[in-house]
Amino acid sequence: MRVSKSFTKTLKNAPADEVAKNAQLLIRAGFVHKEMAGVYSYLPYGWRVIEKIKHIVRQEMDAAGANELLMSTLQPSDIWEKTNRWNDAVVDNWFKTKLLNGTELGVGLTHEEPIVDAARAYLSSYKDLPMSVYQIGSKFRNEKRAKSGILRGREFLMKDLYTFARDQKQHEEIYEHIAAAYTKVYARLGIGDITHRVKADGGIFTPRFSDEYQTISAIGEDTIYHVPGTDIYFNQEVAPSYAPLLPQPEEQSDMVSYHSPGIVGVAQLAEELAIPVERTVKTMIYLVDERPVAVALRGDYEVNEIKLRMALSAKTVELADAATVTQVTSAEVGYAGLIGLTPGVDLIADDSIEQLVNFECGANKTDYHNVNVNWDRDLERPAKFYDIKDAKKGDLDPTTKQPYEVLRSVEVGNIFPLETKYTDALDMYYADENGQRQSFVMGCYGIGISRLMGVIAEHFSDEKGLVWPEAVAPYQVYLVSIGTEGAKKADEFYETLQAHKVEVLYDDRDERAGTKFADSELLGIPHRITISDRSVVEGEYELTDRKSSETKKLTLEQIIATLNTVVDK
Amino acid sequence: MRVSKSFTKTLKNAPADEVAKNAQLLIRAGFVHKEMAGVYSYLPYGWRVIEKIKHIVRQEMDAAGANELLMSTLQPSDIWEKTNRWNDAVVDNWFKTKLLNGTELGVGLTHEEPIVDAARAYLSSYKDLPMSVYQIGSKFRNEKRAKSGILRGREFLMKDLYTFARDQKQHEEIYEHIAAAYTKVYARLGIGDITHRVKADGGIFTPRFSDEYQTISAIGEDTIYHVPGTDIYFNQEVAPSYAPLLPQPEEQSDMVSYHSPGIVGVAQLAEELAIPVERTVKTMIYLVDERPVAVALRGDYEVNEIKLRMALSAKTVELADAATVTQVTSAEVGYAGLIGLTPGVDLIADDSIEQLVNFECGANKTDYHNVNVNWDRDLERPAKFYDIKDAKKGDLDPTTKQPYEVLRSVEVGNIFPLETKYTDALDMYYADENGQRQSFVMGCYGIGISRLMGVIAEHFSDEKGLVWPEAVAPYQVYLVSIGTEGAKKADEFYETLQAHKVEVLYDDRDERAGTKFADSELLGIPHRITISDRSVVEGEYELTDRKSSETKKLTLEQIIATLNTVVDK
Repeated sequence: MRVSKSFTKTLKNAPADEVAKNAQLLIRAGFVHKEMAGVYSYLPYGWRVIEKIKHIVRQEMDAAGANELLMSTLQPSDIWEKTNRWNDAVVDNWFKTKLLNGTELGVGLTHEEPIVDAARAYLSSYKDLPMSVYQIGSKFRNEKRAKSGILRGREFLMKDLYTFARDQKQHEEIYEHIAAAYTKVYARLGIGDITHRVKADGGIFTPRFSDEYQTISAIGEDTIYHVPGTDIYFNQEVAPSYAPLLPQPEEQSDMVSYHSPGIVGVAQLAEELAIPVERTVKTMIYLVDERPVAVALRGDYEVNEIKLRMALSAKTVELADAATVTQVTSAEVGYAGLIGLTPGVDLIADDSIEQLVNFECGANKTDYHNVNVNWDRDLERPAKFYDIKDAKKGDLDPTTKQPYEVLRSVEVGNIFPLETKYTDALDMYYADENGQRQSFVMGCYGIGISRLMGVIAEHFSDEKGLVWPEAVAPYQVYLVSIGTEGAKKADEFYETLQAHKVEVLYDDRDERAGTKFADSELLGIPHRITISDRSVVEGEYELTDRKSSETKKLTLEQIIATLNTVVDK
Repeated sequence: MRVSKSFTKTLKNAPADEVAKNAQLLIRAGFVHKEMAGVYSYLPYGWRVIEKIKHIVRQEMDAAGANELLMSTLQPSDIWEKTNRWNDAVVDNWFKTKLLNGTELGVGLTHEEPIVDAARAYLSSYKDLPMSVYQIGSKFRNEKRAKSGILRGREFLMKDLYTFARDQKQHEEIYEHIAAAYTKVYARLGIGDITHRVKADGGIFTPRFSDEYQTISAIGEDTIYHVPGTDIYFNQEVAPSYAPLLPQPEEQSDMVSYHSPGIVGVAQLAEELAIPVERTVKTMIYLVDERPVAVALRGDYEVNEIKLRMALSAKTVELADAATVTQVTSAEVGYAGLIGLTPGVDLIADDSIEQLVNFECGANKTDYHNVNVNWDRDLERPAKFYDIKDAKKGDLDPTTKQPYEVLRSVEVGNIFPLETKYTDALDMYYADENGQRQSFVMGCYGIGISRLMGVIAEHFSDEKGLVWPEAVAPYQVYLVSIGTEGAKKADEFYETLQAHKVEVLYDDRDERAGTKFADSELLGIPHRITISDRSVVEGEYELTDRKSSETKKLTLEQIIATLNTVVDK
């Protein structure tokens, strides 16, 4: 492509409301056009990057044996009503629209239901399994706020894959098979070394974790916990945590019932007693599957409801209402503690309080706290301590007892056990060898295609602009002509490069060399070739590497030979 | 791909509500899944066909120098308000949706406005022109009724291209340049010989015709008029028509004012007088750019409002209300005629009445008609007769005076002069050599990608199923194994074919030969290779052509050599 024939030009400025670096650079370089917050169009250079990402993803999904298809965007409500995902109170980010006759339709935000509905006609026997299908298309999510440029949009391109298996064992095989393909995708995109498989919440329909693929990035919205020296990563939301041990008093003091009117919460209590909050114990009353339990953890931690749900194999976990708290603690809200709970209410104690000596907590009596509480002496030590706290910086991995490395990251993919939820809800089953009706075990697997462009743009950039990895660069070579003789030679070499199947963007404009160089750098094309009047005389031409800025003087034959070694055709 | 690993199976029946042959076949063969009326998902085989059509279209658009991009589906209202296309009274087939804060958004039904809005940042000088950009993506149209299977949907895939030119001359050059690319596309798809460039209505913003690409098809919704022996085709809506001359009385009779209470319209009048309707003249009062005119044509014709608008270079043409009719004719509605119109009201006479002798028409007097009216004697012969009638079967091409060939067809593409409408409305201009502000001249160019799959499916099919042309077939070869030795050999040959880059669908199932053959035929794969136990012994294998059913016995080497001559890799 000649720059003179390109649709876009580089821009001096990005829109003032665009704060994310990826969107600023992509807009200035003419890769995307912002239609509204969270909605971008892909202009020709950007579309080439997207197509290259799609190509890599498609090749790996095909190699993994998945069938590509394309589901519709418009969605009839009936299939979503069967899984209770049509209800706006359950799924709060639908875009909905209407037929002229008033019938409500959805604008596809995901595709589990329609995939199951389509599969119904084809998958009916164990012989049909395992099966995997995928698509690359647009998703629409009515997010309250769109942010981070093209990283979190209201309309975005996604690869979503779905697997159907006959049982948990077959599901796990295909799940790992697709996971292996994911690893290849990120490696080919050039972000393999900064992208990690991370354990995350699996949701209420599975006792298992899901897996996220997280790319380390300072602008990431996620926090991940890495066990040093291993490839084990956890999303902060599920990271197992062991609280570093703190020095404890050597001797037990007498327990005191402390009158503390108006003192509510461990922060106030610690301040009142002039002690560190780590000496206090926080007791929260939860409804777990609608049954009240007391959850206790060290004052400097927060309850992690996902861990609590998984620890108790529960479906629902929610903070109890005031009436329940009063019933369980015989006190107003704010004075829950460990001693004197209503009989029959289980105490779920976090392991952060297992070794405390002389700790403080609520007294289950309005306006009173207990001071210098000790296990065994003042109350029975629980048979089991749990890990039901949010991990925080400084926490230890429970297995190795090493402190975690805590990192910011962007989710660039996820794989998810769906168990039998969608197929059962849509009343779809298969027949086993004995003709018995059986539930399918499903998985779903996403990769954010447009988000990846943003992540790569954000990560591979410098003060001059974008720095695309070879595999996703819109063009491999930026050819610059300078002067009359330079232009003649460049015209010729442009044809030669194309004959060698090198993707080349030829800056044939009547512009200053500096302008052309600056554009080449902003666009982030991996290799720049400069053909000037002088180089024509010398017979040697500059080949400049975008990443290192290193320039070599070579003959045109040498340049082609060099490109042949690096360019993936 | 192995059939045993394919997502879909062939089905015995299509849904009962699916009447179109293309959708019936595509559903039975597992190419598409119907989500709701007018909304289909593309299953793996169908998606392969779509990708092949996209590939051909993309190659030709790229070769024509167009830049590919992808515009968003979600549309902010402001840019559409500027062209008055947000108003549901003007554009009646929007799907609209809302952000959580209540802001209305559109779901992209076309993309002129956003393309212009995006181009604003990049096209500002005559040096940037001409420019063409295109995309291949989904369009959404809230049609009252969806019909004809995947030919007319509510959600469909389309290639839309937009050109920007500096003036009408440059516009016409690029318009013809893209038109030439269209011709190549249809030829490569295998429908070149039945697809024609057809003149059609250009709309109110241009004095020019648009061009449609129409594929001859019995299920077509369009009627086209072909001038025999030429490559000139018109959409019926704009076909110039010359009425075949009918015998006229040799002598003029006396004009009579005929009392005809309750006789309204030429059909009743002809019956009352026991004459053919071709002896009557129909007079309709129209408002042309809000000015009343009388439009007269032979009783057996209908007024063509597009021709009327173009003949009078008008913006708007509509039937007058009753009050205007009474004012113009001094009579109730139903008695308009040629003699005695209110002075100042122009008579626009169709050429079908130029040669009439002793004709009948309304008398511009309630309950009266004039009988035996003659030009020159009873009223002044108009200085000019127009062609403002709907063409009908039997009409002559005005130039050659030969009767038209009238054909049913499906629109598979259109190209359209947009003049300066969208850029002017969105306040976008360029600077010419003198720095003067100038309007762009735009064009838009569509190809219905998913519709093409339907048209090709419908056209290339027989009683056994689909018959894909080589260029768009989901696979080139259907490989059938029969028996144990056959299966071993077929496993081997499947690998060999893939190594030769032949796209092969391998029916490795444990099914009867007849079932495999029937599936092969329903799927419409161009070539079938059968490897049976017996053929392994003989060393000769069947190669069967789907279209002709012709079978040759060849060695595997000969089969590969034969495929190499027909298969486009």
